[in-house]
Amino acid sequence: MAKDEYREFRLVGTRPDRPDGLDKVTGRARYGADMTAPGMLWGAVVRSPHAHARIVKIDTSKAEALEGVKAVVTRADLPTGLTGEDWDLQENTLAGERALYDGHAVAAVAATSALIAQEAARLVEVDYEVLPHVTDVDAAMAPDAPVIREGAADPTVPEGMHPNVVKYFAFDHGDVEAGFAQADLVMERTYKTEATHQGYIEPHACLGQLGSDGKGEMWVCTQGQWFIRRMCAAVVGIEAAQLRVTPSEIGGGFGGKTTIFMEPLSLALSRKAGGRPVKIVMSRSEVLRATGPTASASMDVKIGMKKDGTITAGKATFRMQGGAFPGAPVDMALYCAFAPYKMPAVECEGFDVLANRPKCAAYRAPGSPMGAFAVESLLDEMCRKLGIDPMDMRMKNAVREGDRAAYGPKFGSIGLVEVLEATRAHPNLSIPLGLNQGRGIASGYWFNHGGETSVSMAISEDGTAQVSVGTPDIGGSRASIALMTAETLGIPYEDVRVNVVETGALGVNEPTHGSRATFASGKAAVEAAQHAIKEMCRRAAAEWGIEPEAVEWVDGAAQPAGPNAGKFPPMTIAEIAGKMGSTGGPISGHHESVPGGVGESFGCHVVDVEVDPETGGVKILRYLVVQDAGRAIHPSYVEGQYQGGAAQGIGWALNEGYIYGEDGRLQNPVFLDYRVPVASDLPMIDTVIVEVPNPGHPYGVRGVGETGITPPLPAIANAIQAATGARLTELPMNPPRVLAAIKAAKAG
Amino acid sequence: MAKDEYREFRLVGTRPDRPDGLDKVTGRARYGADMTAPGMLWGAVVRSPHAHARIVKIDTSKAEALEGVKAVVTRADLPTGLTGEDWDLQENTLAGERALYDGHAVAAVAATSALIAQEAARLVEVDYEVLPHVTDVDAAMAPDAPVIREGAADPTVPEGMHPNVVKYFAFDHGDVEAGFAQADLVMERTYKTEATHQGYIEPHACLGQLGSDGKGEMWVCTQGQWFIRRMCAAVVGIEAAQLRVTPSEIGGGFGGKTTIFMEPLSLALSRKAGGRPVKIVMSRSEVLRATGPTASASMDVKIGMKKDGTITAGKATFRMQGGAFPGAPVDMALYCAFAPYKMPAVECEGFDVLANRPKCAAYRAPGSPMGAFAVESLLDEMCRKLGIDPMDMRMKNAVREGDRAAYGPKFGSIGLVEVLEATRAHPNLSIPLGLNQGRGIASGYWFNHGGETSVSMAISEDGTAQVSVGTPDIGGSRASIALMTAETLGIPYEDVRVNVVETGALGVNEPTHGSRATFASGKAAVEAAQHAIKEMCRRAAAEWGIEPEAVEWVDGAAQPAGPNAGKFPPMTIAEIAGKMGSTGGPISGHHESVPGGVGESFGCHVVDVEVDPETGGVKILRYLVVQDAGRAIHPSYVEGQYQGGAAQGIGWALNEGYIYGEDGRLQNPVFLDYRVPVASDLPMIDTVIVEVPNPGHPYGVRGVGETGITPPLPAIANAIQAATGARLTELPMNPPRVLAAIKAAKAG
Repeated sequence: MAKDEYREFRLVGTRPDRPDGLDKVTGRARYGADMTAPGMLWGAVVRSPHAHARIVKIDTSKAEALEGVKAVVTRADLPTGLTGEDWDLQENTLAGERALYDGHAVAAVAATSALIAQEAARLVEVDYEVLPHVTDVDAAMAPDAPVIREGAADPTVPEGMHPNVVKYFAFDHGDVEAGFAQADLVMERTYKTEATHQGYIEPHACLGQLGSDGKGEMWVCTQGQWFIRRMCAAVVGIEAAQLRVTPSEIGGGFGGKTTIFMEPLSLALSRKAGGRPVKIVMSRSEVLRATGPTASASMDVKIGMKKDGTITAGKATFRMQGGAFPGAPVDMALYCAFAPYKMPAVECEGFDVLANRPKCAAYRAPGSPMGAFAVESLLDEMCRKLGIDPMDMRMKNAVREGDRAAYGPKFGSIGLVEVLEATRAHPNLSIPLGLNQGRGIASGYWFNHGGETSVSMAISEDGTAQVSVGTPDIGGSRASIALMTAETLGIPYEDVRVNVVETGALGVNEPTHGSRATFASGKAAVEAAQHAIKEMCRRAAAEWGIEPEAVEWVDGAAQPAGPNAGKFPPMTIAEIAGKMGSTGGPISGHHESVPGGVGESFGCHVVDVEVDPETGGVKILRYLVVQDAGRAIHPSYVEGQYQGGAAQGIGWALNEGYIYGEDGRLQNPVFLDYRVPVASDLPMIDTVIVEVPNPGHPYGVRGVGETGITPPLPAIANAIQAATGARLTELPMNPPRVLAAIKAAKAG
Repeated sequence: MAKDEYREFRLVGTRPDRPDGLDKVTGRARYGADMTAPGMLWGAVVRSPHAHARIVKIDTSKAEALEGVKAVVTRADLPTGLTGEDWDLQENTLAGERALYDGHAVAAVAATSALIAQEAARLVEVDYEVLPHVTDVDAAMAPDAPVIREGAADPTVPEGMHPNVVKYFAFDHGDVEAGFAQADLVMERTYKTEATHQGYIEPHACLGQLGSDGKGEMWVCTQGQWFIRRMCAAVVGIEAAQLRVTPSEIGGGFGGKTTIFMEPLSLALSRKAGGRPVKIVMSRSEVLRATGPTASASMDVKIGMKKDGTITAGKATFRMQGGAFPGAPVDMALYCAFAPYKMPAVECEGFDVLANRPKCAAYRAPGSPMGAFAVESLLDEMCRKLGIDPMDMRMKNAVREGDRAAYGPKFGSIGLVEVLEATRAHPNLSIPLGLNQGRGIASGYWFNHGGETSVSMAISEDGTAQVSVGTPDIGGSRASIALMTAETLGIPYEDVRVNVVETGALGVNEPTHGSRATFASGKAAVEAAQHAIKEMCRRAAAEWGIEPEAVEWVDGAAQPAGPNAGKFPPMTIAEIAGKMGSTGGPISGHHESVPGGVGESFGCHVVDVEVDPETGGVKILRYLVVQDAGRAIHPSYVEGQYQGGAAQGIGWALNEGYIYGEDGRLQNPVFLDYRVPVASDLPMIDTVIVEVPNPGHPYGVRGVGETGITPPLPAIANAIQAATGARLTELPMNPPRVLAAIKAAKAG
C-alpha cells in the first residue's frame, strides 16, 4: 500500500486493493444474469419492428398455447390511470395504442426455458398499421413532421411550435447584443451530434418475482435500486415498500442503468404466472434498440471575442431529441456549455423534441459533451482566427471562486485555474508534432450532485466495521468509502466492509449517478462513523465513571482527555465492541440527508491526433486528462474515471452513433456495427489529478465521474483542424466524414 | 380482518393474513437449500461411526483424486489457538484429536455434484482407535466413567467430582430444613428425562463462499444470522464484518438453529476450492446424530407441604449431560422449576456433565420442561396424598407481583393468578371422565429475553413503510411487528413491510430465541417509528412555518396542534414522503438497545388422557393451554405458539427420546424411529390467551414462544396417574414403560 507522500491522512489518498477485486477477477462476483431461483421462468420481449405504428390487435393465443409458456402480458395487464413521468415509464415499458420506435416492447412472455420464451415471443401476433415516422431532431421540428404525441407539450413551449416540441428552456443575463458589438470577432456555427449508447459491457438483466398479494422481490443490475423500486411499483401498480430490490454487481452503467426497461415486465409476468420468478436478460441488440441512449443534438452557437481573447458574449440555441418521450438533457447541455468561462452576457434557449427513437437515459454528464462540442469547437476556431493560444484564452476567461456561472449561480471553491495551470505545465504540451498531426485542447464541466442519501454503519462484536450504502459500486466507491470510514474510525482499511444493500434494508437512496457515490455516501458514512465514535466514547466514559465529554477518540480507541488524561489506558474499538451487549447494546451510526456542499469539477483535455489524409482515419497519438478531484480518496479510481470518461468521449467523437435507416429502424444494433473504441484504438491515457479540496466534504471530495467525457468531443475536433485545416461540426468524425471535410477544406 | 371487540387498538389484536403467507403456501418462499450460485459445489461431511475414538490418521488422498472433487478439509485447515466457547464450537465443527460422539464430523469434501461429494466422503480414510464411551448422565459421573475431556472443569466444581462434571450451580434462600420440619408431608423422588430433538421440518442447509481475501458470504437457514457470523468468523479465522450472512426462510428452529454445525465447513471448503460457493444440506440422520438436541437429565426433588397445600420448602439436585461439551441448561432448569410458587426456602444445586453425545443446543425454554417434570409431578403426587385440589394448591402458592422468585429476583407485573383463574373457569375442567381416563394439570414458566436488538425503518416515497429486523420470522413475527409499526404510524397494516435482513445491512442482533422477536424487535420498531414520526412532524412544521412541538401525529398524518390547531389541513404520510427529497432527504428511524422490561410468562395446562391398560398406549383426549401473553398482537400466532409448544411437549412426554445402543451409537436417527407426534396423535389443542399487559413494552407484549413446552411433561404424567394410579418418573412415557408402571402399581 504505497502512500503518496504529501498526504496528511493515514489512509485517504492511498491505493489499497479494492474490496471487490478478488471476486471480480476470479469471476465470482454475481452480475444481473447470475441469479436463479427455484421454479424460475425465462422472459422474452416482443418488440416493434416499426418506428411508428398503430397497434391494431395483439393475438397472444398461439403463444399461450405453446407448451411451457406460463404467462403472456400486454399493456392490458398493467394498471391504467398513470400520469406524467409514471405514464411515460409505463408506455416505454410496454406500448399502448402505438409503437413509438423500432424495438419498442409490445408484449412479453414467460416460459420454462429461454428458448421456449423466444419461440413464444415469435408466436405473438401483432397487427400493426404503420405510421409515418421521424428520427432526426431538426426534421421532427419541421412543420410537416409526423406528430409523435398530441398534447404532450409543456406550457413553456412557445406558441406555433410543432407538437413534437415538448419543452422549452431559456435563460440569459447581460446584454448579449452589446457584448457582440464590443467584440473584435463574432462567429456563429451550427453543430450536430448523434445519439450514442453508454455501451456498458453487461446487458440489462433481472430476476423478478411478484405475488398476487402485491409483494415482490427483484434482483437486478442497476445503478439505483430505489429508482427501480419506485418506478416498477408505479408501473405495475404496487406499493413501493412491498418491493425489495437487490442490486447485483454491475458491469457498467454510465447513467443508462438509472431507469427501468424490462424490469416491470418480469414483475408483471411473474404476477400472471402465479408468482414464479421470471428472469429477463437482454441481448445486445435489445440493449441498443430499446434502452436509453443519449439524445441527439442540433446546436447553434454564436460567440463574441476581443482580440486579446476576452469573451464578450455568447448565445446558444440547442435542439435535442431524446426519443419518443420528454427528457432530452437540453437544459443541462446549456448550463454546462459556457460554464468554464466568465460570460458578461449569455442568451440560451433549448428545445426538447420528440422523435421515433428510444427514450433517452442519462449518459455520463448528460448534455454536457454536446454543449462543449459546440462551444469549445467554436472558441478554438476563434482563437485560431485571432492567433491566440487557446490555453491563454481559457486562463484569461476562467471562472474562479465567487464568479457567477454562465447559468446563474455563484461558484464556491473551484479548481479551474489550477487545472489549466497543471495542463499548461504538462510535458505533453511541448512534444513536437509531425506531418498530419495536430493538438487539440478543450475544457469540460460537470455540476456534480448530492442527492437523497441514507447510510448506516455498525460495529461488529470483534471491533470490525460495516457500512451499508445504497449506491452500487461502479467505479470503486466501496474502496473509497472504506478508506474514509477507516480513516475516521482510526482502524485499518481491511477492518471495514462496505456493503451495497437492498432497498428493504435501508432508507431511500438516489442511484450512483451525478458523480455522487463517493461524495454523498462517503460523506454520510463519515457522519455515521462519527455517531458511532460518540457512542463508543460514551461507553468508555461510563466504564471509567467520567463524563462522555472528557473522552476523546484517538487512533481507534477511546481515551480519557482533559483533566482525566492518562488516568485510564485507552480502550480500543475491539474492547468496546467485545462487551457492547452488556454496556447498552449494539453500536451503530446512521445518516440521512440530501448532502449539500457538492463541489463542481472542471477538467481540461489535450489530445494529439494523426489524421490519415487518404482514409480520413484519426489516430489518437496521446491523450491527457487534467481534472480537479477535490481530494482523491483512492487515486487509482480517480484516474480510472478520468481514463474511462476520455475513452468514451473518444468513441463518441470518432465512431459511435446511432444509424437509422429510411425505414426508421436502427441499422447498427450490434457491437460489430456500433463501434466502441477497443484497446488497440487508444493509447495509455495520461492523467493529472488536481486537488482543490471541496470544503463541503469532510475529506474534500468532488465527484469525478462525469466531467471527463465532456472535453474529448471538441478536443478531437480541434486537433483534427490543427492536423488538417478541416473543421468538423458533426459527430461522429468517422473516416468518410473527415475525408469529406478535408476535401471541402482544400476545395474551400 | 375480524377485530376482537374488546381491543383498544386499531390494529393490535387483529388477525390479518401473515405477510409471508402467500409465499409459504405457494412454495415460493426460499429456504436454506433453495439457493444456488454460479460455480456452486456440493459439500458432504465425513462423520465418526464411533462414540469415542482417537483419530490416528486421516488419509484424504483417494477422495482428492476423485474426478470432480475440489476440496477436502480436516481440522488442519482451521486456525489454531482458539479458546473457550470458540474452541468448543471449532472442535464440534470438526474433531481434532478425538471423535467425541457418534456422528461427530472429522472431515468434509466439496465436489461438483452432491453424489460425487458423498462418494468422496466415503473415500476419506480415517484410522480410529476406539475408546471407552459413556452416554448416560449418571453413568458419566460414576468414578469409573471414561474421561471425555481432562481439564475442562470449571473452578466452581466441588473437589473430588469426576472430571466429566464441568460446571456446578447452586443457590438457596431460607432455611430448608426448618421448612421441611414445618411440613405435614415431605416427599422426595428422582426423575429422568431423555434427550429430545427440536424436530424442525427443515434440515440445516447453507451455501457459503469465502475468498482468500477473507471476505465471505453465506445463505443459511438460521434463527440468528449474527450468531452464525460471529461463530463462523471465529472458527474459520476471519473478521466478523467481512462475512455477510443472509438468513433464508426457516422451517422451524426451536432453539436448535441458534448455533453452527456444518456452516463453517462450507466456508472452509469454499476457501480451499478457490472461493467457489459450497452448498451443504444435512440429511435427517445427520440432523439427529450431529446437531444439538436437548440435554438429558437426572433429577432429585424434595418438597415439604402443609395439609392446606402450603409449600414450606423445596430442594432439588439436577444432573444434566449436554453432550461432549459444557452447556447443559441445568441452571435454567433449576431457576424455572419452582418459579410458579412462593417458596419460603429452597436449596438447589446442579451439575453440568460431559458425555459422548452431540453438543446440546437450545430447545424451547431450555431446561424448564425437565425441572417442571420433576417439581410439578411431585407436587401433584403430594396433592393426591393430601387430598388437595391441585388447582387450589397452585392458587394458594402462586407468585404475584412483588413476590420474590424462588431463584432470587422480585417479580414485576405477572399474570400467574389470572392464568390459574382462567384455567379453573374453563369448561374443559368440568367434562366428566370415563374408565381409564385421567386429568392432569401442571404449570410452567419462562423468563423471556430481551437481547441485543437493532432495528431500522424507512418511509418510502409513496408513504408506505418498511422495517428492517434481524430476527428471522419463525412464528409470525413479521405480522406482529407490521401490526405494531402500522398502529404506531397510523397507517394500514398492508402499508408496512417487515424485512428480515442480512448481517451486512444492520447492527448486531441476537437470534429469534428467548421468545424475544416480537417483544424486542417489536419494541425497537415502535421506537424507530416514533423517531420517523418526529421527523415527519418536523417537516410539516417547517412547511407550515410553525414550531415542531406544535405539530402532533394523528391517524397517519401531521396536524397542527395547540394554538395552531385547524390552521392547516393535516399533511398525510404520503404527502410528506412524496416531497422528502426536497425537504431534507430520506425519512428513517433507528433503534439499538438491549431492551429492558422483559415480561415473564406463566402458563397452566390441563390434559385429559385415556390409557389403554393392555398396551400402555396413551391417547390425548383433550388439551388446554392457558397462558399470559401480556398482549396478543396477532392472536392467531399466539395461539399457534401455545399449540406448538404443547404438541412438542406431548411428543417429549410420550414418545420422543434419543436411544443409544451399547456401542454408543444413536439407534433411532430417522423420523420413523424417532417418533414425533403427527396430526392423528393430537386433538385440536384448546387455548386461552390471558392478557396481563407487560408494562415494559409499548403494547404490553410478553414473549409467548417457550412457556408452552414446559407443562405437558408433568401434566401428562399427572393425568396418567389419575387414569391408572401409576406414577411415571422417567421419560418418554411410551407404551412399554406405561405398561410396566401399571403392572408395578398393581403389584405394589
